[in-house]
Amino acid sequence: MPELSFEPLTPTAFLDRAAAAHGDRTAVVDGDLRFTYTELHDRCRRLAGGLGPLAQGRPVAVLAPNTHVLLEANFGVPWAGSPLVAVNTRLAAGEVAYILEHSEAAVLVHDPVFDALVDAAFALLAAPPRRVRAGAGYEGLLRGASPAARTPHDERALLSINYTSGTTGRPKGVMYHHRGAYLQALAIGRAHRLSPSAVHLWTLPMFHCNGWCFPWAVTAAAGTHVCLPRLDPAQVWRLLRTEGVTHLEGAPTVLAMLAYAAEAAPLDRTVRVATGGAPPSPAILRRMGELGFDVTHLYGLTETFGPAMICDWRPEWDGLDGEAQARIKARQGVGNMIGLAARVIGADGTDVPADGTSVGEIALRGNNVMLGYFKDPEATAAAAPDGWFRTGDLGVLHPDGYVELRDRSKDVIVSGGENIASVEVEQAIADHPAVLEVAVIAVPDERWGEVPAAYVTLHEGASATEAEIVEHVRARLARFKAPKQVVFGELPKTSTGKIQKFVLREKAWAGHERRIQ
Amino acid sequence: MPELSFEPLTPTAFLDRAAAAHGDRTAVVDGDLRFTYTELHDRCRRLAGGLGPLAQGRPVAVLAPNTHVLLEANFGVPWAGSPLVAVNTRLAAGEVAYILEHSEAAVLVHDPVFDALVDAAFALLAAPPRRVRAGAGYEGLLRGASPAARTPHDERALLSINYTSGTTGRPKGVMYHHRGAYLQALAIGRAHRLSPSAVHLWTLPMFHCNGWCFPWAVTAAAGTHVCLPRLDPAQVWRLLRTEGVTHLEGAPTVLAMLAYAAEAAPLDRTVRVATGGAPPSPAILRRMGELGFDVTHLYGLTETFGPAMICDWRPEWDGLDGEAQARIKARQGVGNMIGLAARVIGADGTDVPADGTSVGEIALRGNNVMLGYFKDPEATAAAAPDGWFRTGDLGVLHPDGYVELRDRSKDVIVSGGENIASVEVEQAIADHPAVLEVAVIAVPDERWGEVPAAYVTLHEGASATEAEIVEHVRARLARFKAPKQVVFGELPKTSTGKIQKFVLREKAWAGHERRIQ
Repeated sequence: MPELSFEPLTPTAFLDRAAAAHGDRTAVVDGDLRFTYTELHDRCRRLAGGLGPLAQGRPVAVLAPNTHVLLEANFGVPWAGSPLVAVNTRLAAGEVAYILEHSEAAVLVHDPVFDALVDAAFALLAAPPRRVRAGAGYEGLLRGASPAARTPHDERALLSINYTSGTTGRPKGVMYHHRGAYLQALAIGRAHRLSPSAVHLWTLPMFHCNGWCFPWAVTAAAGTHVCLPRLDPAQVWRLLRTEGVTHLEGAPTVLAMLAYAAEAAPLDRTVRVATGGAPPSPAILRRMGELGFDVTHLYGLTETFGPAMICDWRPEWDGLDGEAQARIKARQGVGNMIGLAARVIGADGTDVPADGTSVGEIALRGNNVMLGYFKDPEATAAAAPDGWFRTGDLGVLHPDGYVELRDRSKDVIVSGGENIASVEVEQAIADHPAVLEVAVIAVPDERWGEVPAAYVTLHEGASATEAEIVEHVRARLARFKAPKQVVFGELPKTSTGKIQKFVLREKAWAGHERRIQ
Repeated sequence: MPELSFEPLTPTAFLDRAAAAHGDRTAVVDGDLRFTYTELHDRCRRLAGGLGPLAQGRPVAVLAPNTHVLLEANFGVPWAGSPLVAVNTRLAAGEVAYILEHSEAAVLVHDPVFDALVDAAFALLAAPPRRVRAGAGYEGLLRGASPAARTPHDERALLSINYTSGTTGRPKGVMYHHRGAYLQALAIGRAHRLSPSAVHLWTLPMFHCNGWCFPWAVTAAAGTHVCLPRLDPAQVWRLLRTEGVTHLEGAPTVLAMLAYAAEAAPLDRTVRVATGGAPPSPAILRRMGELGFDVTHLYGLTETFGPAMICDWRPEWDGLDGEAQARIKARQGVGNMIGLAARVIGADGTDVPADGTSVGEIALRGNNVMLGYFKDPEATAAAAPDGWFRTGDLGVLHPDGYVELRDRSKDVIVSGGENIASVEVEQAIADHPAVLEVAVIAVPDERWGEVPAAYVTLHEGASATEAEIVEHVRARLARFKAPKQVVFGELPKTSTGKIQKFVLREKAWAGHERRIQ
C-alpha cells in the first residue's frame, strides 16, 4: 500500500502547490515579462526536462542577475535531479573558473551580460561545462523539452552548493539539503509575514544563500516575485510604486542606498524589510520608519541557509522610544521558528551566562544547518566539532534570551552583506613583487559597514603606491574584495614574529562599541 | 561525529524554543493563573517526569475543558514518552469508558468538573487507568517530579490518538505523528498569522484534533494562550477586551453565538477568526466583519490534523462586494502550505474537471495525514485505498483551483463542528423496545448547521413519543448526538428492502444549494 502520510520535504513542492492553488495569479514580473504560477510551473518543469540529459545529475551552475532565469533555476535544476550552483555575479574570472571546476558543474546557464566573464573563466578551464545562454538558447532548451520533475526520496539529498568565502583563501562549497531549505522557507516566510498578497521585490542577490530561501518562501505563500537585475535605487522606488511592492530585503548598506535616494518619499503602505549581514544603525531605522518601511533584523550565514536567527519583535517594545527600539533591533535575536536555541559558547566550551556582557562564540544547530562543505570533510568537522556549527561570530546573550554580536573571531570581513576572507586578499597582495608582508583586517565604513584595509610592509628598496596595490587585487579578485585603504609601514608582531592583527584592529575600531558593523 | 543538520521534527520543540527565546513572556492565562514560557516549560517537563513512571510509555488520557492542564498535556505527555488521548468532554460515560479501554490508557488526568463522569466510566471498566485529578493531585505530581523530556528518534512516532465518530458506530482512534503535528502547526500558524503579538483565546475545544494543532502553533509563535474552560459568550467578550485577544477559532455556530451575544460591540482592532466544520453564512460573515473580526475559512478532518485546507484569501478579491466575498469565503479552498494539492475524485476514480459543477470526493494526501486508525488496519486501508485519504465529503473544483463542498458521502453529521455517526445514533434508537427500524440523517439547522433527524418505524402495536426516543439516546450517547426531531412512519425503501436515505435527504434539504451547512 502506498504510504499514507509521508512526503519527502522538498522546497520545489511549494511550486506544485502554488500552481494548483494559485495557478492563474502572477508569479513573476521581470521587466515586461509576466508569468502566472501555471506558466512558471510549466517553465521550470521544461527547464528540468531540458537540463536532465545535459547534466546527468551533475551540478548545474547559474551565473545571472536577479532575473526569471535564476528564479526558475531554483526549481528547474533540482527537478532535473541536479544540485544548483548559483554563482556570485561579482566574482572575477579566476574565481568563477575555480567554482565551476570545484563543483564539477556539467552545465553553466548564464545571462548575456556575463558573456565576457564566462569567456574569461572558460579560457582557464581544461574542460569547461556545457554553456546555455539566457535568451534564445535558454528559451529553445525549454521549448524543445518535455516537462520533468524528479524529486528525491531522501529529503536530505543535496539541493544546492553555495560557495562562500570563509577563513581560508578558496571559497568553500556549502551543501544545502532539500529538508533544510523546505523548513527554512517556512520559517523565513513567517518571519517576513509573506502571504498571497505579498509582492516581493528581489533586492537581495538571488545567488546569496539561494536568496535566503526566498525563491521558495515567496512561492510557498503564492506571492509575486518582482525581479530586479540591478540594484538601482531609482528603479526600486519606481517598482515600489508601480508594482505595489510589499516586501524586500538587503544589508543595511542597501537600506541606506534606498533611504537616501533622491526618489525616496513616504509610502502609502507598510513595506516589510528584512535586513542582515550587519546590524542596522539607529539613523537608518529612523529614516526607514519615516518612509513607511518596517525593518526586521535577521542573522545567519551561508552555512545556515541564510537567516537562522531573528530579532523577533515583542509587542511590549512598541511603546519604547526610537532610540531604545533601535538598540533592540540591532540585536541578532533568537533562533527562528524551526531552529534550536542559539548558544553562546565561551572559551572553556560551556555556555556563557545570559548577562549581556560575557562574550562567547555563537553556535547554531538544527535542520537549517548545512550538510557540510563540498569535498571538504576536514573543514566540515572543524566547523562543528560537537555537532554545533560554530559561526565564527562573537557575541553576548542578553538576560531575555536575545543574542547580540560583538566581534568576529575568524578573519572574515562582511562588506555590504558579502563575505571576504582576509587571507584571500592577503594572498593577492603578497603576490605583488614589491610586497614583503601584509595583514588585512576589517575596518568600519560608513557605507559598506565594514571594508578590508591592508597593512603592508615593502621589500627594502622596493616601492608601490596604494592605487597599484588596489589595482593588483582587482585584477585577481572580485572588485569588492580590494582594500579600501592601504597603509605602508612596519606591522606589529609578537616576540616570535607573529603578526598581531588585534593591535591593528584595536586602533581601527577605537571608539566603537562593537567590532562589527 | 554528531549529526550536523538533523533534528527529528516534534511539536514539543516549539516549547523549548519559546522558553529559550521568550521565556519571560506570558505563555498562559487561565483565570487568575499566569505562567511565563519558562514556567510552562518547567511545568510540562515536570509533568513528563511525573507521568513517565506511571504510564511506562502507554497512552495518557486527559478529560478536561480548555484549561492549562490540557494545554500542558500537549507537551508533557509526549515528553513522558506516551501518546496523548484528549477525550471529548461531551461524551457519555459509556463512550469515555470505550475510549479508555480501546486506547489502553494507563493514566487518566481529569478535571474535577468531570468527577461524576469519570466515576461512571470507571465503573464500566474491569481495569480502569490510574487517576490523576487536576488541582492538588496534579500539582503534587508536578512538585514531586524531576523534569524530563523524551523526544522520539523517529519523527513519525505516535504522538496522540484522537477518537472521532466516523461511518461506523464506535469512534475510531486517529493516530497523529510528531512530524505531521510539527508541520501542521507551522501551516496553521501561518494561515492564522500568529506572531509573538498573538493573544489566542481558546474558544476551540482543545480535545478536538488536538485543538487543530494550535497548542503547538501558538507556542511556536510564542503568543499567549488564554484558556477558556466554558464557551460563555459574555466571558469571551470580556476577555476580548481585558486580555487584548487577537485570535480565536470556532465552528460557524460559535461565531453566531459571539456575533449575536448581548455583549457584542465593535472591537478597536482586527481579531482574526478561523472557522471550520461548516461554511460560514453570508449573514455571519457580514456581522463578524462589522464587529471587527476577520474570518478565514478552513477545512479538514480529525484524520488530517484538523484544517488541511484553507480558503486562501487573494488580494484581488478585496474589491468585491460583501455578497461575492461571502460566496468565496464559503469555499473550503486549497491545500494549506504544507499539504499537497487536494484532489476531487469522480465515481470513475479519475479527477473531475475543474469546472465548478462536476462533483467528486475530496481526497487529501501529505505529511498532515494520520498514520492510520489505532488497532484498525482494515479501516485504515479502506480510508486511503491508493494512498490518498478519502474524506467522505463531496465537492466541486472551481476553475481557479478552489474546492467547494456540496455534500457528504458518508453517514456523518457535522453538528456545531462535532462529528456524529448516523449509525451510532441509529443503533442507540434501534435499542428501544418499541422501535422496528430507523434511519438517521443530517438535516439543516439554523443554529448548529446540521443536526441529526431520526425517521422511525415502530413495531406493530407499539408506541413511543419523540421525547421518549430523545431521552433514550441521551442516556446512551453524548447529548449533542440525540436527534433534534423524530419522524414516525414508513421508511422509503428499494425493491430489495434497503432504506433509501437519499429520499429522506432530498426532502429535508429541498431548497438548499448544497447539502452541508
